[in-house]
Amino acid sequence: MLQIARQAPTIESIIAAHAALRAQGPLVQCLTNVVSANFMANVLLAAGASPAMVDNPEEAVGFASVAGAVLVNLGTPTTAQVQSMRLAVQAADDIGKPWVLDPIGAGALPWRGAIAAELLASRPTVIRGNASEISGLAGLGNSNATGFDSSHDPADAVPAALSLLAHASCVSASGPIDHVVGKVQDDQGNLAHYLLRIAGGSALLPRVTASGCALGALVAAYAAVAQNSFCAVAAAHVHFALAAEYAERQARGPGSFVPAFLDCLDLVDARLIRAKGQVEGVKL
Amino acid sequence: MLQIARQAPTIESIIAAHAALRAQGPLVQCLTNVVSANFMANVLLAAGASPAMVDNPEEAVGFASVAGAVLVNLGTPTTAQVQSMRLAVQAADDIGKPWVLDPIGAGALPWRGAIAAELLASRPTVIRGNASEISGLAGLGNSNATGFDSSHDPADAVPAALSLLAHASCVSASGPIDHVVGKVQDDQGNLAHYLLRIAGGSALLPRVTASGCALGALVAAYAAVAQNSFCAVAAAHVHFALAAEYAERQARGPGSFVPAFLDCLDLVDARLIRAKGQVEGVKL
Amino acid sequence: MLQIARQAPTIESIIAAHAALRAQGPLVQCLTNVVSANFMANVLLAAGASPAMVDNPEEAVGFASVAGAVLVNLGTPTTAQVQSMRLAVQAADDIGKPWVLDPIGAGALPWRGAIAAELLASRPTVIRGNASEISGLAGLGNSNATGFDSSHDPADAVPAALSLLAHASCVSASGPIDHVVGKVQDDQGNLAHYLLRIAGGSALLPRVTASGCALGALVAAYAAVAQNSFCAVAAAHVHFALAAEYAERQARGPGSFVPAFLDCLDLVDARLIRAKGQVEGVKL
Repeated sequence: MLQIARQAPTIESIIAAHAALRAQGPLVQCLTNVVSANFMANVLLAAGASPAMVDNPEEAVGFASVAGAVLVNLGTPTTAQVQSMRLAVQAADDIGKPWVLDPIGAGALPWRGAIAAELLASRPTVIRGNASEISGLAGLGNSNATGFDSSHDPADAVPAALSLLAHASCVSASGPIDHVVGKVQDDQGNLAHYLLRIAGGSALLPRVTASGCALGALVAAYAAVAQNSFCAVAAAHVHFALAAEYAERQARGPGSFVPAFLDCLDLVDARLIRAKGQVEGVKL
Repeated sequence: MLQIARQAPTIESIIAAHAALRAQGPLVQCLTNVVSANFMANVLLAAGASPAMVDNPEEAVGFASVAGAVLVNLGTPTTAQVQSMRLAVQAADDIGKPWVLDPIGAGALPWRGAIAAELLASRPTVIRGNASEISGLAGLGNSNATGFDSSHDPADAVPAALSLLAHASCVSASGPIDHVVGKVQDDQGNLAHYLLRIAGGSALLPRVTASGCALGALVAAYAAVAQNSFCAVAAAHVHFALAAEYAERQARGPGSFVPAFLDCLDLVDARLIRAKGQVEGVKL
Repeated sequence: MLQIARQAPTIESIIAAHAALRAQGPLVQCLTNVVSANFMANVLLAAGASPAMVDNPEEAVGFASVAGAVLVNLGTPTTAQVQSMRLAVQAADDIGKPWVLDPIGAGALPWRGAIAAELLASRPTVIRGNASEISGLAGLGNSNATGFDSSHDPADAVPAALSLLAHASCVSASGPIDHVVGKVQDDQGNLAHYLLRIAGGSALLPRVTASGCALGALVAAYAAVAQNSFCAVAAAHVHFALAAEYAERQARGPGSFVPAFLDCLDLVDARLIRAKGQVEGVKL
């Protein structure tokens, strides 16, 4: 479901999205990898959403019509799960339900790269990946990428992200500073591309497996409740970054960071977002 | 394997079941969802049991004959796993091995609801679910349920739980106050239905994914060692509730609750069960 | 890929392997069970490696050529995953890439025991299991084993481990004191079997699910960077044991042990390995 915002996200619209998340506790259907499943569900619960990992072909379509949003993550695809993904995102697109594509490994692995490219036909509301994945999905590189952890600067993926706006309302290349692009159309009908840079976070985040996956799921949760998808992406990234920043202060390493991060996802509130949220918007 | 207790569970019989769990460390075969697998295994280990997630069709039957009990959880069923479930529970019923059915989502999703209903033919020793799932499985509602988290009061599911006693020895609708029903036949042959209400626990439990799933597995562990299935269900719920209650005191949120809860599952002992276990029995 | 060391591992060669792990952050392809996936990935990240759970038949071969090492763990095999395992280890053997076999349950379950035995034809660099699994895989017992947790002394598995050196460069029977066997050929061409005993660790390790699985993955990570496979196995076990030993001091039970263990995997350094590593080598 493509959607164009009327204005770029602001801290106040992010706070409103956060309030909507807490008030509505949106149900998020996650078709995700086995590494992430438990952590992703706990991230959604801690943040205020409700996870359901319904990813079999028999139930994928029916549940997409009930869920507030759908997340598709290509981390450990099986034949049956890929079939479910196709069905779920087509259903989501048909009924105007937001869905998020997390093209894990799309930059490095041609087979799943092709699946990710195929899913673009069902117009993801949001695409979230690391720099390599966004570049790989856009066909703009990066064939040298081997692992699933991005060692590339998200800023380098902005051209790729912009090209993917042909398929999606918003695209996020996340990393030390998240780079999110989207389209804004003002009341006069003028269309512009915006880039948001979201800072904060923690150097411990990439030391925890599936942290990017969990961010993708949180984007889906916000997409179910926010006033538009651009604001949803911004709110999810700010919520995530603030929780990580505060969790780092309590952590002695990547292990103790995990429970602290979940605690902090629960604690982030309007006051903290207003005081500490780091969002910088640029009209391109 | 249907089984009728000679008396309703008491704190002393729960303490005896706990001692048996610690002494025997029963092997529990878990056919469960990918979200719960790691946490469930750690819950069983912390409580004193031994988990084995053997859920392929080639080994499901053979392992059921070796395990002390079998858990079937419908959280993320695949075709192969459902086949394994059918085989394992039929084997368990044939050889008189206790098995537990956790009908995740049965209230909301017709496909898996039908699988759950079909599995009833192999006479689960115990059925454990939240209020929506118990009501859904009994065909007594609740078609409005959407997610997997129950927002319904377990007390409302008691009629549904009682109707499921046609298929199972005990039925638990767990929640803020767990409601467990079972049958007791005294020495004169008089048969009566009993309702146990088990309090304690923590508001953080539903903020942790798969906590209900893990409770189902702990029920299976106790069913392998307790004097009867009614006592097993009571012991598992009391052990779980006490651990959660004490963990909450150490937790700063849903993240830090998890390691504290596992620590407390390990620490629960006869003294604590006797002093703090909250079980109330009512003859219906 | 069979490989014969020029000398038995020493503390200094272990320190060199650790430095190489930290410098190179090797990519480890894990074909593993659903219980272990998240914890294993976090163990690899905390220790300094990079995990990728690529286990579908379409990508298994291609990824094996990119990864630094391959881990095959038979904990919860599916038909598709077993097919991927066959493909990945054959590819690894063909191109001389180290791979590790973790024959979970091989001692207790004939079906997967046969798969494990079949995979030996692709010459694992290292086999790591508990005593029952090593004995079971070697066909030297132990048909009484039921669960996946070893209650047998690794010392009893040394004859089985030695017999498996016909298929693998190194074999580890891990437990309270890990027993690792390998071959060393000196400059004069004399071939000898060595046994390493590695102490340390924690009684809490077997209370955490998939801790053995995670050790297998760490062996694979070291095999990607160490000067030879014998040294890789020694380094992984020492790193693991030291982290567990220090984590126990911070833990109140099996739950709080997990984050502490991950923190400590991150903290282990050359100084600690030199001061506290407990490796004893014996020429057999």
